[in-house]
Amino acid sequence: MRVPDPVAELRRAVREALTGLPAAANGRFAASRRTNDAFAPVVLACSGGADSLALAAAAVHVAPAVHGVVVDHGLQDGSAEQAAATAALLRELGADAEVVAVEVGTAGGPEAAARDARYAALRAASRAHGDAPVLLGHTLDDQAETVLLGLGRGSGARSLAGMAAWDPPWCRPLLGVRRATTRAACAAAGLPVWDDPHNADPRYTRARLRHEVLPLLEDVLAGGVAPALARTAAQLADDDAALTALAHERLIRLVDPDGALDAVGLAGEVPAVRRRVLRSWLVAAGARELTDAHVRAVDAVVARWRGQGVPPLAGGLEVVRAHGRLRVLEASHHGVRAPARPDGPPPIR
Amino acid sequence: MRVPDPVAELRRAVREALTGLPAAANGRFAASRRTNDAFAPVVLACSGGADSLALAAAAVHVAPAVHGVVVDHGLQDGSAEQAAATAALLRELGADAEVVAVEVGTAGGPEAAARDARYAALRAASRAHGDAPVLLGHTLDDQAETVLLGLGRGSGARSLAGMAAWDPPWCRPLLGVRRATTRAACAAAGLPVWDDPHNADPRYTRARLRHEVLPLLEDVLAGGVAPALARTAAQLADDDAALTALAHERLIRLVDPDGALDAVGLAGEVPAVRRRVLRSWLVAAGARELTDAHVRAVDAVVARWRGQGVPPLAGGLEVVRAHGRLRVLEASHHGVRAPARPDGPPPIR
Repeated sequence: MRVPDPVAELRRAVREALTGLPAAANGRFAASRRTNDAFAPVVLACSGGADSLALAAAAVHVAPAVHGVVVDHGLQDGSAEQAAATAALLRELGADAEVVAVEVGTAGGPEAAARDARYAALRAASRAHGDAPVLLGHTLDDQAETVLLGLGRGSGARSLAGMAAWDPPWCRPLLGVRRATTRAACAAAGLPVWDDPHNADPRYTRARLRHEVLPLLEDVLAGGVAPALARTAAQLADDDAALTALAHERLIRLVDPDGALDAVGLAGEVPAVRRRVLRSWLVAAGARELTDAHVRAVDAVVARWRGQGVPPLAGGLEVVRAHGRLRVLEASHHGVRAPARPDGPPPIR
Repeated sequence: MRVPDPVAELRRAVREALTGLPAAANGRFAASRRTNDAFAPVVLACSGGADSLALAAAAVHVAPAVHGVVVDHGLQDGSAEQAAATAALLRELGADAEVVAVEVGTAGGPEAAARDARYAALRAASRAHGDAPVLLGHTLDDQAETVLLGLGRGSGARSLAGMAAWDPPWCRPLLGVRRATTRAACAAAGLPVWDDPHNADPRYTRARLRHEVLPLLEDVLAGGVAPALARTAAQLADDDAALTALAHERLIRLVDPDGALDAVGLAGEVPAVRRRVLRSWLVAAGARELTDAHVRAVDAVVARWRGQGVPPLAGGLEVVRAHGRLRVLEASHHGVRAPARPDGPPPIR
């Protein structure tokens, strides 16, 4: 009997994702084609929704052992029964399964708090299974929503790069698969799908992006927006990785043993590399909540030096330039920072 | 008398933009601070709307000579009278001004056709004034709309990088200035603003982004979306410039005198650089309408070579790999392309 197309697409996606996983032994990506038997056991997060259920069905077909984790957030009446039913369904599919009840805090809002609790439970499951990869059911449509969420932050490639296909222990095999496909796969396999009412609750930003913003954008931009956002995310992730690697290499070369940064050497780099070097250096020096404006102010001291100061950073830190070097000082040291002879032209204005 | 804040902000923006322009003599960016007298004459595009009118008022204050161009697209009743009134206003402000009537075609839709006609007229004005820079009144809000337009294309940093502050002969001093500021500046200076009805016409994609999508995004993402989009555009433009320069340098090193590309050497580069090298090489070889999928298919032949072919490109071109080199052949040469001994493992599947 022929495997229905959506089911085949999901199995292929899972197989490709597992093939791309690093060989556990040495932490490097395995280049060779492996047989299914060679895949390691996986942990799989399942809500009972179409995405993670279709992922579970594909995973038990592809991987030798699947440990399903159903997180009970305890946020709705009957959530324990719903979680138990999903775990039973996973066992029917051939996985072993457990329900993990978590306590959801309030930090960062309801979405963030639920996610934090869920991810902590899944990390624990990964560790309990030999640091197994944790398969997550995020689809192309989720990725598109994540990119739109990133737009509001406006910190460039990093905030628009969306979710990574592999960010240990998280593995997302379905980032190239439409949400409609997971639903079709569940229907084809006769799997009963549970629809989380939170996914349609307009109090949640993501639900509004899904039900209001994306349909409007699809209409205004004449279609294809979700795949375009997902393609953009993939390209920006590669761009950011390339520039971050380049910046890391430069940073190592430009930092003195005492932590001072060679501003003169850095000035010869292009802006995209300069700002990444500065961000990494500032974070390593203890800077927190760095904004684009902060990094640009420090960059101006590197690339357009005319004796100007830098607005203080969060946490009482400040950046000073002397003798062609940048240093991060605590504001309490302000009195002792004054360089004997600042280099470059005197301040204007 | 104190200069009103919005007027001062616009003058500062124009001064900074003109300071950053290349010195005409050698085409390099002038690093020194110049006095106003040293700025070259500029051409300025003015529709009579708040953005370009406020820009004109600031430009005549900052630049020694401003040649205003009012393009009459002839698309509305009374457009000639409206253009003449705007030109008269520019002369009152201290600019010299001309009305250029253009014929708007139909290619690419009404927005694109009007833009093509307008930009051709402005290019001609630039040439007639010694290749003077052409000042355009695009604001931060226009930039945000442009980024959203780019989202629908989904080709990564390039499509999200928005408009450049300086892309000869185009100079956009107001990309960091809100639209509300140009309107406030006009009000403060008592300038009569003309509102183009096209800017509110829902048949135009940009008008829908402005009046429907951006307000919804502002609501859903809790504000700050337009500045975030503009910041993202600026960062992605720098990222793309850095990676494009790196790719250009690699391309020169990896191409043989006969145009073949060293696939083995290219395989050692990171994906973001590899794909840019391939895109430039394919375009130089005559490829047109390249999609992300095309470039990725060619990239797979470089980075994951197992004897596979590449889907033909638009224009009857195809890419073949032999002896570790890529070549672009015309499909009509198909009969003679077969390499005697393809390198790498034989095809699977």
